[in-house]
Formats: sequence, C-alpha cells, structure tokens
Amino acid sequence: MSLAAEPGTIDGVVVRPPHDPPRAAVLSVGDELLLGDITDTNATWISRRLTEQGVEVVHQLSVGDDEERLAAALTWLAGQVHLVVVGGGLGPTADDRTREAVAAAAGVELRHDADLEEAIVQRFAAMGRPMAPQNLRQARLPVGARPFPPVGTAPAFALTLTDPSPTRVVALPGVPWELHALWEAHVVDEVAALAGRRVTVTRVLHVVGRGESDVAAVVEPVVGDRDDVILALLAKGHEIQVRLTVSADDRTAALEASQPLVEELSTALDGAVAGVDDEDLETVVLRLLGERGATLATAESATGGDIAARLARVPGASQALLGSVVVYATEAKQRLLEVAPALLADHGPVSAEVTEALAAAVRERFGADYAIAVTGVAGPATLDDLPVGTGFWALAHPDGGVEVHGRRIPGDRGQVLLRLGSAALDLLRRRLVGA
Amino acid sequence: MSLAAEPGTIDGVVVRPPHDPPRAAVLSVGDELLLGDITDTNATWISRRLTEQGVEVVHQLSVGDDEERLAAALTWLAGQVHLVVVGGGLGPTADDRTREAVAAAAGVELRHDADLEEAIVQRFAAMGRPMAPQNLRQARLPVGARPFPPVGTAPAFALTLTDPSPTRVVALPGVPWELHALWEAHVVDEVAALAGRRVTVTRVLHVVGRGESDVAAVVEPVVGDRDDVILALLAKGHEIQVRLTVSADDRTAALEASQPLVEELSTALDGAVAGVDDEDLETVVLRLLGERGATLATAESATGGDIAARLARVPGASQALLGSVVVYATEAKQRLLEVAPALLADHGPVSAEVTEALAAAVRERFGADYAIAVTGVAGPATLDDLPVGTGFWALAHPDGGVEVHGRRIPGDRGQVLLRLGSAALDLLRRRLVGA
Repeated sequence: MSLAAEPGTIDGVVVRPPHDPPRAAVLSVGDELLLGDITDTNATWISRRLTEQGVEVVHQLSVGDDEERLAAALTWLAGQVHLVVVGGGLGPTADDRTREAVAAAAGVELRHDADLEEAIVQRFAAMGRPMAPQNLRQARLPVGARPFPPVGTAPAFALTLTDPSPTRVVALPGVPWELHALWEAHVVDEVAALAGRRVTVTRVLHVVGRGESDVAAVVEPVVGDRDDVILALLAKGHEIQVRLTVSADDRTAALEASQPLVEELSTALDGAVAGVDDEDLETVVLRLLGERGATLATAESATGGDIAARLARVPGASQALLGSVVVYATEAKQRLLEVAPALLADHGPVSAEVTEALAAAVRERFGADYAIAVTGVAGPATLDDLPVGTGFWALAHPDGGVEVHGRRIPGDRGQVLLRLGSAALDLLRRRLVGA
Repeated sequence: MSLAAEPGTIDGVVVRPPHDPPRAAVLSVGDELLLGDITDTNATWISRRLTEQGVEVVHQLSVGDDEERLAAALTWLAGQVHLVVVGGGLGPTADDRTREAVAAAAGVELRHDADLEEAIVQRFAAMGRPMAPQNLRQARLPVGARPFPPVGTAPAFALTLTDPSPTRVVALPGVPWELHALWEAHVVDEVAALAGRRVTVTRVLHVVGRGESDVAAVVEPVVGDRDDVILALLAKGHEIQVRLTVSADDRTAALEASQPLVEELSTALDGAVAGVDDEDLETVVLRLLGERGATLATAESATGGDIAARLARVPGASQALLGSVVVYATEAKQRLLEVAPALLADHGPVSAEVTEALAAAVRERFGADYAIAVTGVAGPATLDDLPVGTGFWALAHPDGGVEVHGRRIPGDRGQVLLRLGSAALDLLRRRLVGA
C-alpha cells in the first residue's frame, strides 16, 4: 500500500512521526454487541472510511457499557495507534459511559459545557417535551475536549491523550446516521490533519456469473505486482466484487489514475463486469433501459417476484419496469399466462420450453419491449427428479424472438434464488450493451 | 443476569474461580475486516452462542494478519478473561499466523502433528489434486494443544495459556460453516467445562406494526425487575424483536421457565406478536394458510413483487402461494387486473379504492382463497401530491369481501417498501388467527 506520509498536527500536538503511515483503532461500545444481538456494521463503515483516507486500521474492539473496561481498552489502544474512533456510549442514560471513560483515560475531569446545555434545552423546547434532568449529562465533556455540535441528540467530541504517546480520540454516537453525518462534518478534517490530504479511493467492479477463483485467475495477472494498488476480491450475495484501492493527491486524481486499470480489467473479464462503483446490476439494467426508452416485464416462478422487487428498490424504477406476473403454482402458469397444458405436461413446469413460453407471454401481456422469465428448483426438495439448483432463464426481445438458457446453480435456497434472478438480469444487460 | 457458577476445569487446570460467571473474548483475524471490506458476523454468532451457554463476553477484537499484533492481543485478552475464541488465520498460506501467534503467547514451540499431516495428504489424494508443500503448514500445532479434527480444510485446536492467569484459547477457522460445525462438535463441550452445564436460552418475540418505544412501554412493566431474565429490544428491518434470555439446567427447563412470560407478553402486546423464536411473520402466515388448506395471491404495486418473494424464500411456500401480479405501471393496473380507468382517474393509482379493486381482482384471477394488495409512494419522489410513505394495503377474504387500510409509513425507500409489505402480511395473519 502506498500511503502519503506528511506529518500531521492536531491542537499543536504532532501525533505521529513523519513518513510513517498513521495507525488507527475503532472502539465500539454497547452490551448488545457482546450479547451477539447485533453485528457491528459501524466498525466496517469507519474502517473503510479511514482506509480511504490513507490510515491503517490495526484494531477493531467492542466493549460493553462498562466505564472501567472502556478506559482500560482506550489506554491499551492508545499505546499502539495515533487515532481511536469511539462509536457509542454518548446517550443520556446512566449506561452511557464514553464521556467518563475518555476522561479517565486522559486523566482529566468532566466539565459542564454551557453551549451544549443551551442546545439540549432548546431541542426539548422545540419538541414541546419536558426535559428529564438526566439529559443534561450530555452537556458534560472531558476537560480539553473539542465539542462537535450534535446533528441528532448526542454531542460528540475529540480529545488528545498524551500518555503513553499522543493519541487523538474521536467519540461519536453509535446511531449510524448521526455517526455518518458527524464524520462528514468534522471527522474527515480530523483524519486529514493526521494523514495528510492524500486520499485513497476504492474502485469496485461488480462481476456477475463467474466464480471467485475464476475471477482471481483473470484479474491477478492484470494487476501484477503494482505497489500503488491494493487488489481485493469479495464474494457478496450474487456477485464477486473486484476492489482496487488507489492513492492520489485528491479524489479526481485517484479516479483518473485507476481508470485505465478498471478498463483493462473490464476487458479481461470479457463482459462479466455488470457495473462499476455505485452501479450494481439492477441499477445498470434500469439505466440501459431508460437510455433506450425501453420497458421491461418479468414472469417469475421460483424467484417469486424477487427480480421485479430488486428493480423496484432502485429509485426511478417506474421509468422502465412495467410489472411482473409471478406464476408460482403450476396451474397459475396456465391460468395467467396461457402456457399450453401439453407443454407443461411434456416438459414439466421447470424447463427451457416453459420458461421460453412465459417470457413471450408476459411480454405480450404487459406490452413491454423486453421480458425476462425464470423457472427453477430452489430446494430443499427436488421437483420431478430435477436436482436442487436447476434453473432456466429466458429473454424475449422487442422483435418477438426469445432466447433461453439453463444450468445448475450452486448454493442454498436463498443463493439459488438470488443467482437465478441475476442470471436473467445479466442476460438482459448483455443484450442491451450488445455484448 | 443469573448465571450458574460451578467451577470448571480443562486439562486439569481450574480456569476460573468458583461462583464467578466465566468471561470470554472473541478475537477475529483478517486484514479484510480492518480494511472495512467485510463485517465481522462471526463475532456476533460466537458471542450469541457463548451468551446462551452462560458465558459473559467482555471483548470482541479484530486484528489483521500480523503475528506480533495477534500475540500481543492474545496476551492482553488473557489477562482479563477465562476463554478466548479465535476465528481465522488457520489457512495454509504464509498470511495465516494464528498457530504461530498462539504458540508465541503461550511461550511454546510449534510441533508437527503426524495425524494431521496424514489427514491433509489423504484429502488431496481423495480430490486427485497435487498437494503444495505449504499445505503441511496446517499440520503444525502449538506444543500442548488439543487438535480438533478438521471438518473442512483447516485443523482447529485448543490450548491453555497459564500466564498471567489460566486462560483457555480455542482457535477456529474463519469460514462460517466450518466454524459452526466445529463449534457443535467440540467447542460446546469446551465451554460447558468452563461454564457448567447450565444453559441460557433466548426467546424471541417478533413484533410487527408497532414502534420500539411503544413496545418498550408495554413490555418493561411486565418483565419488571425479575433478575432471572434479561430483556432486550431490537429493531430489525420491519419488526421489533423482544428478546428474553433465561437460564436453567437444560434447554427444556429454560424453555418451560420462559413460556409463561412469553405468553404474558404476547397478551400484553395485544396481537402484535407475529411469531415466536424461529417463526417470523412470513413463516407464520404460510403455516396458518397451510393449516387451513388455504391459498394466497398478491397484487403489488410499490413493493414490486417483494411480498410474494419474501414468502417464496420460505421452504415449502408452494403449498399456499399461488403467485402474484405486479402492476407497477399505472397502465398495468388497468391492463392486467382490469381496474376501471374511472377509478384510477378519480382516486389516483395510490388510493384505498384502487388497492381494494386490485385485491379483489387478483384473488379472482388466481382463484385464490385470500389475496392481498398494496399501493404506495416509496420515494424519493412524491406522486400526485401524496407524501413519501403513503401506503395502502387490502385483504380480500374467501367470502369475497375486501378490507382496506392506509397510513403514512416512516423510513427511507427500502424501509417503506419492507414495512408496507409487512402491514399487508400482518393483516392476513390477524385475520387467520381471528385476532
């Protein structure tokens, strides 16, 4: 990893030696994490943002609502990193101990902040609700801390610990949207002060329809041993993400520096890259349809409507998506889309022939330009001796022609349904881009 | 929390004082966690399982593929807990450092295990693939470790550190299915040796259609200050989970001990509990339909097929689910389900009147016993001056009658779609149970 290494100062304190990549830890607070009731997605989000700004995350630690353990954890982390980002424990209740623990680790008292108190009082007045005295706990801050004005209800702050070595502590609320908003408003600058203004950008190629080892065999030789790029492969649901992390002086330069590699990889992957960065398969399909002023309908058996629902989750889907007929029961295939009883009897409801007929029929019923149809055996039970994972998908074209494909799809019920839908959407995408 | 506190011994070493709840830490290993590429769901799973066996998890820590940091983290945790569960870093590559780090923390060497080597050689022979010499790294274990026979490719092991105080370390592969299988086969007994055979069971009430603070106000007085029960509320997607954690000598006793409270809470929540434990809303609806031999069809606008797809994800859905007509475009409402143009013009496509007509029409088209229909404005754009979150849902009964409901649903696009679908499914559930 190539990291810029300008020395940074915060509040006049040099918090890391020059030419050394800054190191950080993420400290999440809450009993619900340790009980296994929730998964710590804040740590993932914070780590990604720190990585993008050129900071090396060396620890993620979760601790319960316990002041002593929190303070001990802070002290342990402070000995190893230049920055600790704390998420959670800033609420108004007696369980919220982050303020006290940071003060204890810093060896300072809590002080009462008059501006924060005023903001809290005004917030309750604006809501027309009485304020319980315990809410004023949120007006307390460790002596020497820099308060961040709250975006929700919890005031956040930053403070530099000096023992054993200078470490910046940023304390944020655990509510994700408050944490994200405070990050953009204040923490980006805190991190830049530490890491320099050099930024790290991660480009994402969304690969559909190929396995992880297959993708690795293609992309690894292309990236080679370039030391300005970090390559990571990640299997997520129905897709393999190829992630390229590149550093540069600003975001635009990093995007430009990575673009030739993105294009080279897209070529090497031979049309299997459905989208890049924020554009996933569903978004790309809707954009391509929109650009052509074309409409789509689906006929779904095994997926039960999931293909249409995946498209409907994208804002603006109504420009291209007309609707779907979900013919889950075999009789429904005949009743709603007039699949001939002989076709069903001869080939079975899960077959290339029936899938083809469904695509043609639903295109006609909706008056759509394109239509896709799927049938399959998602399991756990088999059907008509067809093994679990058997899937067919068809695409009806504006000229009335229909193409149909089928194969055995690996995975459990959920994965089979997801991948079957993706195979159909990817067939449409390839047709639209002329691949 | 009421925890049994029989002292436990492992390998003849008493690993915690009597009458003290045993404490544990989860240590996850992998650069991909610290880059923010993936979220640590293993830590959640392990924490829940430990909690259920009466162990208090006090830390979750993630560390990269770095032997020195791993060993330092193990040493730090060992000073605070009786058990450290390590996930990851047991693969065959040079990046996999868990074996070395545990040996370093224990102050022992690695030894070569002839049985493990034999198992590795045989595995490659069985696959007919050549074995690279580096795979024999997986035959090495810290001296004194108890090997767990591999269920996948990575051998796991347990070892007791004695300094600063006795701490059992269990090292497992990070691949979830291997981790889960080894847990059931070996780790349950390791934990029982530490915590005693007393078990902790978590009961889950799935509450639909009510807000978190509203649910809290109902359940907290019912649970009161019982010290044999831990109460936790958790907002997950479209539901609020009320979680009750209860200890007893075995699973059956814990279930029996918790049952009166589950029933009391269900009554207090006045029909809002869709299901208990593994039965969520979709599963309950399908079971209730199945018990009555009744069938269902849906007509969906805003949700785009998501209601039918949610049901189709449950194995055996085909017993009751006939299918769906997704009439996403306004014209499709008229074209596929013959909604009168005058009704659409007078009331708009998102209205009680149109939703009612859709439910009646789709029930008829599929020949179903019940039908549900939804229309709504999911945003971000408004429609016909209706605000984002406007939603209507209707239920057509076997007698031909249709009831329709509507309200403003809070949340972003994804949440509105999820909650709108749940409102419709919950209306059907209440009708089926006669609530």
